[in-house]
Amino acid sequence: MNKHFYTVIMAGGIGSRFWPLSRQKAPKQFLDVLNSGRTLFQLTYQRFQAICPEENIFIVANKDYGALIREQIPTLKEEQILLEPLSRNTAPCIAYASHKIAAKDPDACIIVAPSDHLILSESAFIISAEKSLQFASRNDVLITLGIRPNRPDTGYGYIQFIEDLKDNDFCKVKTFTEKPDLAIAKQFVESGEFLWNAGIFIWNAKTILKAFETHLPEIASCFNFSDNLYYTDSEESQISKAYLECTSISIDYGIMEKASNVWVLPCNFGWSDIGTWNSLFELLHKDENNNAIKGKYIFTRNAKNCIINVSDDKLLAVNNVENLIIVESDNIILVADKNQEQDIRNVVNEIKSKYREKFI
Amino acid sequence: MNKHFYTVIMAGGIGSRFWPLSRQKAPKQFLDVLNSGRTLFQLTYQRFQAICPEENIFIVANKDYGALIREQIPTLKEEQILLEPLSRNTAPCIAYASHKIAAKDPDACIIVAPSDHLILSESAFIISAEKSLQFASRNDVLITLGIRPNRPDTGYGYIQFIEDLKDNDFCKVKTFTEKPDLAIAKQFVESGEFLWNAGIFIWNAKTILKAFETHLPEIASCFNFSDNLYYTDSEESQISKAYLECTSISIDYGIMEKASNVWVLPCNFGWSDIGTWNSLFELLHKDENNNAIKGKYIFTRNAKNCIINVSDDKLLAVNNVENLIIVESDNIILVADKNQEQDIRNVVNEIKSKYREKFI
Repeated sequence: MNKHFYTVIMAGGIGSRFWPLSRQKAPKQFLDVLNSGRTLFQLTYQRFQAICPEENIFIVANKDYGALIREQIPTLKEEQILLEPLSRNTAPCIAYASHKIAAKDPDACIIVAPSDHLILSESAFIISAEKSLQFASRNDVLITLGIRPNRPDTGYGYIQFIEDLKDNDFCKVKTFTEKPDLAIAKQFVESGEFLWNAGIFIWNAKTILKAFETHLPEIASCFNFSDNLYYTDSEESQISKAYLECTSISIDYGIMEKASNVWVLPCNFGWSDIGTWNSLFELLHKDENNNAIKGKYIFTRNAKNCIINVSDDKLLAVNNVENLIIVESDNIILVADKNQEQDIRNVVNEIKSKYREKFI
Repeated sequence: MNKHFYTVIMAGGIGSRFWPLSRQKAPKQFLDVLNSGRTLFQLTYQRFQAICPEENIFIVANKDYGALIREQIPTLKEEQILLEPLSRNTAPCIAYASHKIAAKDPDACIIVAPSDHLILSESAFIISAEKSLQFASRNDVLITLGIRPNRPDTGYGYIQFIEDLKDNDFCKVKTFTEKPDLAIAKQFVESGEFLWNAGIFIWNAKTILKAFETHLPEIASCFNFSDNLYYTDSEESQISKAYLECTSISIDYGIMEKASNVWVLPCNFGWSDIGTWNSLFELLHKDENNNAIKGKYIFTRNAKNCIINVSDDKLLAVNNVENLIIVESDNIILVADKNQEQDIRNVVNEIKSKYREKFI
């Protein structure tokens, strides 16, 4: 295993999409939404143990999740957990981690990944990740993993690649398009030139730090301390200052869409960002009436195509309903049309505006 | 106010029809299902305070509900609360109350009523009740109040009366029919000869005791103690013995359908037995989307024609659903099609058979 290979797991998302199952105090990545016995964060961590030395795996998350991270992966050392005093999107998060890793190992080659995605074929993923780390270790490139789309999903970002500009399966990236409408998504998929943006990036430390200097110099200066304060007692206070000063921007918008050395590796490892109840429903085990059910005391009669998730201390009786999301968590109950799940956000926002953090 | 007028309120029903709102430990009559600030039992008691002296109102209920009764009407004296050691349907309940009242006042004239019905026009009801008590005090008759039907409801019992055999608005009863099917119910309503059986009975003590001797001699003997033990310390043990011995039968089946001196008073006082979620829904205040909502933290979006009732310590978010019953009580949640409410009973029975009393 290459000792210069590093992983950065971004575990900061608040994610109200699975509310009330996911809450601000326990977002999706820290839940066992797949009923697999492990949380998405634990599954992600486990996946990268096969790719880089365990001590080279770094977690970045809001400080509120420090306790959850330590609880779910007790073997992590404190220096592997990078706690953000504020949530500032992915660019500052990656800048922080990149500087910290570079301070330890200037020849580091880094794979950055979200903590809450599903990857069904771990072996295919490991092959793609290692191939990308190898390519990035030898080249001044910013790599993103692209998923071959099997449907015109309007919830994903799309990457257009240039087939002719190819190097060892890696293709030069032409454009990024965030969540297109259905007609455009269909064209994208039919053209064969587009891939889904999985939000998994690979580069060497020097290349990403240079990209920050070029495209986000303000953020670069926040984390590029004149004295090397990483791994010292001063790190926490300097990082607090950096987060207060730096702007909130995504790595996609801040660097990937602007840089000229961006490459994509077309992949096929059974990926889902599990971003919606419906995508979760697809992944879960269903009963003979196509209901995905989790809970200790659940009684259904004439229920079809429902996703049900209720605490073990509650009893739920369901009669003659279809296509419902019925979720109870921590005394909050959601009953919603599974086919109109995008509207749930509006209810959650209304609750948020009325009660602030109380139920969120 | 005639001091020989008495009321017997039957408050024993267990009623799983409003489960999980109504539970074995707190059935419908002891709940404020109408959101009026008073329980159905309290509303019923209040109604009879205008008809007979307060000390002449007797409550009969299973011993499990003694505490609830005392709590809801604190002014009741212990001798007014008749606790049944076992539930044995309405005939033993009425036999017990009739003997006890007759032991105190042989000239008593008694109105017997359920504790969980709604009467919208109290003044019309009082007129009908007083008229019946007057008629019963002078005649050897068994009177039942009949409601003029406004729809072919298949959930009610029907009383056929003989228009020609009339005495002061009271008509002789020809037949009783329990819950007919829809075609028959339609014929009943169209004929004009049928009334709904409200389960409210009026008779004098001598007449009802004689009817028990004639039609249910076994039950009569159980409660007709040789020594007059009512209002003594021996009452409780003798009643326990009586309930163990007597059969379980309704007053309708045991006496009303067999006796020849049964009369009905056609009434019109806005009556409902609130026997179904849909009948309750009709009575409740609805929001602009025709939802009947009770709960402290309820958020609905695109919800229509729903009946929602959730404890004040729970939050419920509802999105894009129609015609649902969503009820939470004591950590039990019911989500059911309002148009198929008769099937809820099957779910409840399944839960009962699996967990006995735990959730019932």
